[in-house]
Amino acid sequence: MAVVVEKIERADPSVIEKLGAAGVATVHEAQGRSGLLASKIRPIWPGAQIAGSAVTISAPPGDNWMIHVAIEQLQAGDILVLAPTAPCDMGYFGDLLATSAMARGCKGLVIDAGVRDVRDLKDMGFPVWSAAISAQGTVKETLGSVNIPIVCAGASVSPGDIVVADDDGVCVVPRANAEAVLTGAEKRLAAEEAKRQRLAAGELGLDIYDMRPRLKEKGLKYV
Amino acid sequence: MAVVVEKIERADPSVIEKLGAAGVATVHEAQGRSGLLASKIRPIWPGAQIAGSAVTISAPPGDNWMIHVAIEQLQAGDILVLAPTAPCDMGYFGDLLATSAMARGCKGLVIDAGVRDVRDLKDMGFPVWSAAISAQGTVKETLGSVNIPIVCAGASVSPGDIVVADDDGVCVVPRANAEAVLTGAEKRLAAEEAKRQRLAAGELGLDIYDMRPRLKEKGLKYV
Amino acid sequence: MAVVVEKIERADPSVIEKLGAAGVATVHEAQGRSGLLASKIRPIWPGAQIAGSAVTISAPPGDNWMIHVAIEQLQAGDILVLAPTAPCDMGYFGDLLATSAMARGCKGLVIDAGVRDVRDLKDMGFPVWSAAISAQGTVKETLGSVNIPIVCAGASVSPGDIVVADDDGVCVVPRANAEAVLTGAEKRLAAEEAKRQRLAAGELGLDIYDMRPRLKEKGLKYV
Amino acid sequence: MAVVVEKIERADPSVIEKLGAAGVATVHEAQGRSGLLASKIRPIWPGAQIAGSAVTISAPPGDNWMIHVAIEQLQAGDILVLAPTAPCDMGYFGDLLATSAMARGCKGLVIDAGVRDVRDLKDMGFPVWSAAISAQGTVKETLGSVNIPIVCAGASVSPGDIVVADDDGVCVVPRANAEAVLTGAEKRLAAEEAKRQRLAAGELGLDIYDMRPRLKEKGLKYV
Amino acid sequence: MAVVVEKIERADPSVIEKLGAAGVATVHEAQGRSGLLASKIRPIWPGAQIAGSAVTISAPPGDNWMIHVAIEQLQAGDILVLAPTAPCDMGYFGDLLATSAMARGCKGLVIDAGVRDVRDLKDMGFPVWSAAISAQGTVKETLGSVNIPIVCAGASVSPGDIVVADDDGVCVVPRANAEAVLTGAEKRLAAEEAKRQRLAAGELGLDIYDMRPRLKEKGLKYV
Amino acid sequence: MAVVVEKIERADPSVIEKLGAAGVATVHEAQGRSGLLASKIRPIWPGAQIAGSAVTISAPPGDNWMIHVAIEQLQAGDILVLAPTAPCDMGYFGDLLATSAMARGCKGLVIDAGVRDVRDLKDMGFPVWSAAISAQGTVKETLGSVNIPIVCAGASVSPGDIVVADDDGVCVVPRANAEAVLTGAEKRLAAEEAKRQRLAAGELGLDIYDMRPRLKEKGLKYV
Repeated sequence: MAVVVEKIERADPSVIEKLGAAGVATVHEAQGRSGLLASKIRPIWPGAQIAGSAVTISAPPGDNWMIHVAIEQLQAGDILVLAPTAPCDMGYFGDLLATSAMARGCKGLVIDAGVRDVRDLKDMGFPVWSAAISAQGTVKETLGSVNIPIVCAGASVSPGDIVVADDDGVCVVPRANAEAVLTGAEKRLAAEEAKRQRLAAGELGLDIYDMRPRLKEKGLKYV
Repeated sequence: MAVVVEKIERADPSVIEKLGAAGVATVHEAQGRSGLLASKIRPIWPGAQIAGSAVTISAPPGDNWMIHVAIEQLQAGDILVLAPTAPCDMGYFGDLLATSAMARGCKGLVIDAGVRDVRDLKDMGFPVWSAAISAQGTVKETLGSVNIPIVCAGASVSPGDIVVADDDGVCVVPRANAEAVLTGAEKRLAAEEAKRQRLAAGELGLDIYDMRPRLKEKGLKYV
Repeated sequence: MAVVVEKIERADPSVIEKLGAAGVATVHEAQGRSGLLASKIRPIWPGAQIAGSAVTISAPPGDNWMIHVAIEQLQAGDILVLAPTAPCDMGYFGDLLATSAMARGCKGLVIDAGVRDVRDLKDMGFPVWSAAISAQGTVKETLGSVNIPIVCAGASVSPGDIVVADDDGVCVVPRANAEAVLTGAEKRLAAEEAKRQRLAAGELGLDIYDMRPRLKEKGLKYV
Repeated sequence: MAVVVEKIERADPSVIEKLGAAGVATVHEAQGRSGLLASKIRPIWPGAQIAGSAVTISAPPGDNWMIHVAIEQLQAGDILVLAPTAPCDMGYFGDLLATSAMARGCKGLVIDAGVRDVRDLKDMGFPVWSAAISAQGTVKETLGSVNIPIVCAGASVSPGDIVVADDDGVCVVPRANAEAVLTGAEKRLAAEEAKRQRLAAGELGLDIYDMRPRLKEKGLKYV
Repeated sequence: MAVVVEKIERADPSVIEKLGAAGVATVHEAQGRSGLLASKIRPIWPGAQIAGSAVTISAPPGDNWMIHVAIEQLQAGDILVLAPTAPCDMGYFGDLLATSAMARGCKGLVIDAGVRDVRDLKDMGFPVWSAAISAQGTVKETLGSVNIPIVCAGASVSPGDIVVADDDGVCVVPRANAEAVLTGAEKRLAAEEAKRQRLAAGELGLDIYDMRPRLKEKGLKYV
Repeated sequence: MAVVVEKIERADPSVIEKLGAAGVATVHEAQGRSGLLASKIRPIWPGAQIAGSAVTISAPPGDNWMIHVAIEQLQAGDILVLAPTAPCDMGYFGDLLATSAMARGCKGLVIDAGVRDVRDLKDMGFPVWSAAISAQGTVKETLGSVNIPIVCAGASVSPGDIVVADDDGVCVVPRANAEAVLTGAEKRLAAEEAKRQRLAAGELGLDIYDMRPRLKEKGLKYV
């Protein structure tokens, strides 16, 4: 049952790039509010905003062997996504693995577990979204799988799905939906810009969105 | 039971400003160690230190409709304080609402739930203290209330109360106590400054506060 | 049962300094993966990396009296390590105590509870690793002990043990092991540097560590 | 600021009794979904269902002195409600205090902290709703207050309010609302009984509540 | 995007029944340690052991409308499985919904949220595995979906999958694997019975599983 | 570093038995409020009250190999105490290991991790205090140690220490202190019995413990 799927499909790089530029909150809205990882997954340093193709890892708790296996599968622009098979906050990943992943063109790591060497990772500019920071090392004893569908922090992730990550968290877009989601995201961004200007000028959301009649109908009282 | 109270009393702006300058830890001590929100309420970016008058929001879980209603009630110098009626980590508030709130002179947001667009909020200089960061959006379906007394993160907050917030967290001062608390806070700050100098010079708290006799009486043994 | 042990042994300062330079992750590995504090213990500001001799404090929940007692026992290069006798997130320590501790040459604080005045502590350059940030003050009513063996965030700490702390967390090295651990840490660092260069050049961990035969033997399938 | 309010108003005993019989879920609905304590407050043994008048205690973390003070204020039918002034899971209350409280006619305890001697409490038939179970004892050093308004597990409780508790948790009814809430609760119970029979006979909620048109209007698709 | 899939495939009832008899721990092992829900999902009363076909519900936080929709889709032997689209501990389900579900032959509920009326549910013999118990009611305002693939408490569940639940928790078996998993589970049970007798007679696992040579090879020292 | 200490000292069986009869809360008080495990360690079934000699296990996360090793070291009256080297909620222990342990006279298990087969364990009458219940199985790949000093759920435990466990939790008594603690515990029990009778008769703790003068001196006001 331990397998490495070597050939995965990836989305169009220009679509991926634009999803990354749209950011997590917009992408999440544009795909009908699905695909968000749990809010415990936080950036280990602020300010990074990336998108890439998921290379998925299902790993035993406390065992990072499969990360080495996964790194061989990386192509430029990929993002590693690791889910342990049981809850674990140990440090699966540090500066050496980051050096190796960066050498393969990897854009970042999303992990529902811990990482270490966080200052080095920041200095290297390697972004990580993790559930914990821990110096506790792992073993290399038990197999897992690479590039199979996983559940990471409550979200389903298939290999080749687009991972979007920024300071708000991480959202996964199924590969087949990438272009449709992008279209929706760009529409939202355009609409938001117009609203932002009206709101900045002091106009109220109550009026822009015509909320007053429905508030009244529902029974809101001003006293 | 869904109401908006339009007219609330606010404290003297100069008192509010001085409470903000005193900071959360000092203000909390000065009012007899009450009014502190739970430590899960953390700034989404470090360094802000504000005080303002509370415009309170009681909102259903996952429903941010009443924020639009509350923004209309804002006056310059106010702080929005939102408590959901059941635990919720969704992202009630983002850059558009912040744009609107800032246009009304709002100084910040305190929320026992999540927010999103945190990088934008930081770039805009809009401070938020929240229980979570989440891109998960909310609906606008169910009424709540604005400017009623609420319990936010374990603390009672009435509209017009003074909210003080900095990197230590958030403290609420009942409006009626504002001047007395300020007097106490300023006394503490003066006393602390004198102690700081003695401590910096190497004098011990054991001596400054004359603790040795009482430690001995309680039975502390040096071995 | 409330005691202050005034005379404790400390490790060689040059060994301590080198352990600090090696950092938490390396030191933890070098001593057989023991001594790590739970990952809830986080720096209140990023970037500090220190090592020092533990002056330990066992304090009642919500009572910081013994910190004053412990400060008198500090020597230059020491680190305060406080464990409450029951879980507590209150703010035991702020800028006044930090001023006093710095005047005695203290290098930092590790505490399985809360601290306050975090912006001041950052401005003073006094590093703290804590379980919480809270403005909630403590009392001075009940005795505890100083320089007895304690359990702090899941790790045993004896007075005079070497505490190493950085952005990855906190690790404790028993004093008797300091030199052996340092030897191991320095070996690891040298070995890591060689590997880092090979990995940066694109060589795979699978090959550097000769993992392929064992992966095959365990049954990993490439599909 | 440490006070004991000796004279408090209580609601009509027959109203209190009927609110207890209605149970937490019904009472909570009947008062507009307010007054519920956080779901961390759980019964230490299952099956008890009580209601009584709140005698409130605001106590320092780890200090149960004020429980002794509060017991003197108890009248038959009262329920002790304790909120610590900072989060604390220590065991404030055990079989001796329960013996004393029962001798005064106390019907139970609600506490946002820990209790101990849980097997004895069960054998004595003394019901407790708590946030934790812990053998960790407390001190008697610092004052608190009795019969002042408190916030307990996220809910405001004033002395004399009606506390309703069962296996679903704890709900607080402001004294002034007791009769109105009871009227609402009894209406709900009658309506529920009719619905229960129809549902048991196999009729669907979709039909009983006439939900189909609105589901269709909102866009639900059957495929 | 809100859909109800009316026609789903279910596994052979006799296979489902035998998986239920094998229990969660055995079934989980027999399918290669996958499909387990997070350990926060606990029975609200002990002793039930069931298996059935999943009727899945994806519901907004704090909104139980889709449960009414799902009940219409139930067949005898089904189990409702609800995942909210954001974390939520509110009480989605109580005795009225249980009455309705039981009338349709439903065997139980698995929910990554809260339920209420727990004493009634126990008295009715309706088993529930939930993440919380809360009297907090929900609204009926926003659509979700029924019988689509969901992620519930970290596990993927498709409609018609077999849900096995007992005091150890909940495990999901993909429908296509049901017979193979059952075969594996029954082999394990037989093997375990033989081992149980040898262990009960005092034989050691070290000998039964021939562990001594490998322990020695790995370097275990007896001192 | 992986060792099994085969010969450990145990306390006098009659002392152990009496400590068990005294119970956790009394024993914890009698030894100066030390030795209590964190309150997350809860019985998997209520009502057991035991004491025994600790056979300690330090095990890697997700690896229960050393339990097999430890069982060989058990003598009648021992209690297994397992601490993982990193946080882990997996099911290390089930009915087969319990069968084996019972065959060696083991009285129970204390584990800062998970267990499974909880219904079987209850039916067998084998008591367990654990941090979690989980069907998730473990591997047998990495060594740990048996009968070395460990930290379990925040408490130091040495092999041969007396473990006392009941519905209030778990307390550890260092072997050398066993008789002194027992003497103290029995004094407390005798004193408590006298107090219980006075309290049951309606006398107040305020009077029995002569608290009124000190409350007044501290400034408590009756209003």
